[in-house]
Amino acid sequence: MKRWWTFLVPLLLSAALAGCAAPANRGTDAASAGPLTLERQGSFFVGGRTVQSDNLSLLPAYAPGGRIAVDQMYVRYQVPAAAARPPVVLIHGCCLTGKTWETTPDGRMGWDELFVRRGFPTYVIDQASRGRSAADPSGIVQVKGGRAGPEALPQVFGASQEGAWAIFRFGAKYPEVFPGMQFPLEAQDEFWKQMVPDWLNALPTPNPTVPALSQLARRLDGAVLVSHSQSGIYPFQTAMLDRRGIRGIVAIEPGACPAATSDMAPYAGLPILVLWGDYVDQSPRWAPRLKACREFVEAANRAGARAESVLLADVGLPGASHMLMQDRHSLRIGRWLADWIDARVPR
Amino acid sequence: MKRWWTFLVPLLLSAALAGCAAPANRGTDAASAGPLTLERQGSFFVGGRTVQSDNLSLLPAYAPGGRIAVDQMYVRYQVPAAAARPPVVLIHGCCLTGKTWETTPDGRMGWDELFVRRGFPTYVIDQASRGRSAADPSGIVQVKGGRAGPEALPQVFGASQEGAWAIFRFGAKYPEVFPGMQFPLEAQDEFWKQMVPDWLNALPTPNPTVPALSQLARRLDGAVLVSHSQSGIYPFQTAMLDRRGIRGIVAIEPGACPAATSDMAPYAGLPILVLWGDYVDQSPRWAPRLKACREFVEAANRAGARAESVLLADVGLPGASHMLMQDRHSLRIGRWLADWIDARVPR
Repeated sequence: MKRWWTFLVPLLLSAALAGCAAPANRGTDAASAGPLTLERQGSFFVGGRTVQSDNLSLLPAYAPGGRIAVDQMYVRYQVPAAAARPPVVLIHGCCLTGKTWETTPDGRMGWDELFVRRGFPTYVIDQASRGRSAADPSGIVQVKGGRAGPEALPQVFGASQEGAWAIFRFGAKYPEVFPGMQFPLEAQDEFWKQMVPDWLNALPTPNPTVPALSQLARRLDGAVLVSHSQSGIYPFQTAMLDRRGIRGIVAIEPGACPAATSDMAPYAGLPILVLWGDYVDQSPRWAPRLKACREFVEAANRAGARAESVLLADVGLPGASHMLMQDRHSLRIGRWLADWIDARVPR
Repeated sequence: MKRWWTFLVPLLLSAALAGCAAPANRGTDAASAGPLTLERQGSFFVGGRTVQSDNLSLLPAYAPGGRIAVDQMYVRYQVPAAAARPPVVLIHGCCLTGKTWETTPDGRMGWDELFVRRGFPTYVIDQASRGRSAADPSGIVQVKGGRAGPEALPQVFGASQEGAWAIFRFGAKYPEVFPGMQFPLEAQDEFWKQMVPDWLNALPTPNPTVPALSQLARRLDGAVLVSHSQSGIYPFQTAMLDRRGIRGIVAIEPGACPAATSDMAPYAGLPILVLWGDYVDQSPRWAPRLKACREFVEAANRAGARAESVLLADVGLPGASHMLMQDRHSLRIGRWLADWIDARVPR
């Protein structure tokens, strides 16, 4: 890992320049944000394919079979007035949807809006088979109709609140809380409502989200892919598929980085940030992943990448949980990240 | 049904007044819309409950059981600068999500933005167990784990494209097209990607979406509930639950209206519009529903409601499909509806 101060100089330079270029878009907070002016906004799908299924419905009102679309990825976007920065794509993690990046559980501005206010066209996705990206019901209908055994059911799972507690590092185990931990636990009921069943294990590898991200990045003609947790590996898999359209990768607490022994060619010249919250060394789940990602960063840099692994506590932002885009200091963390992108990714 | 010209006078009066009050918010179109200024935006959940399940996961990485939140309703909203109109809540129909109201399949502005530009704070929901509103995976996990028979599986279904064709009245049957029908079929691939598995039949009656809509309407201190198709009955069920917070009901091609013989007391004094596209009389599925809704309108008016059933073809907007918020003339239809709300629902 590079020392944090090694990118302080370009960061300060960039901040000074950006401050000249777009003062209205900088330093805003939920409380003092004021009206937001959008150039345009909307939503669309990327990817997907049409499949024929004989197991769509057991109900008389709906045909038993026919064609449906699967594997598509829902994308919602906002482009700020006078956008002068590269598009960012926000990719949620396990058992969650694009809601991850929206209004925080305690009602503050989400990163989806923060990045728009900072001048980034911002794209929020729902992974394939989750949220507004359709799953295929055929396995369930087939088994319920007695036409296949239970092994034909999709490997769907839900993360329990008690189990997620430690994964999200609110504390070592439920209901303990790490000292100084900044997730707004007083609003945890609203947070748990964000969680949805996860179809990840019912899907092929790479996840259909990966080729869809590749299509999206090329369509945007250059984007920074920002992943979280389970989706941590996706931007790297996307770069391996096709480097076109990828201007930078930010992996926030990735479930996995590429193996340090794997082919590093896709990352040559690419700005890469692996970003971590606090208490990682106290987590048997996360500590080995931090170690492996640091090894990846070193290997990638030897192959010409411009990669860094950063602990937020090392840059003056301690107390971050795994859900750091929703922590009490989420806007400070988001602004730090926007500064990093400004300093590292060419306009 | 009242004659369409009976509300022309208040509509023109309202249009004239609104034109004075907020000229920038009127008459805009996707092509000429220009930047959009929001007072605020965000997302949150309404309703929901915590359940204990022993069947959340068969994977070693996730606890087999614990607590999850179910029945909550995802809501995304935008409040325009200088909002001077009542909030509208847009409620999607069968096999779809809130995406229904966003960018049309052929890339034009959705009603979610049209209503914001017209000065309405606009709330788009995902029904309970669909889209970003979590379903309960327990039944699937339980059966896959061999702890229950297939009858424990949820009654999930998908609507095939061929079957949906006639339901959405693109034509009498797939792949026929009604003459003059305005759905942008050249973009149908993008439309089919909007469709998701539907958990409606796995849920109790009334659907948990109904009490959630009631909570939302009260939280907004007065809203117009705009339903579509399968959700057509929900605003009426919401009014039956609690009239507080409901300032008007717009049921677009409802799957059902309340029975004309049922209790009409919840609708006394309430502005109600049942709105229909074209080709209804040519559809064995929809023609009886139009007839039954007209009987409801008459019964509601006898009980003091201010209800109307309107065919869009009768107000100069022929060619509308069942997905009329996405038809080629969707913005003209949306503006007609905004005018109706302006004329009928007190500010």
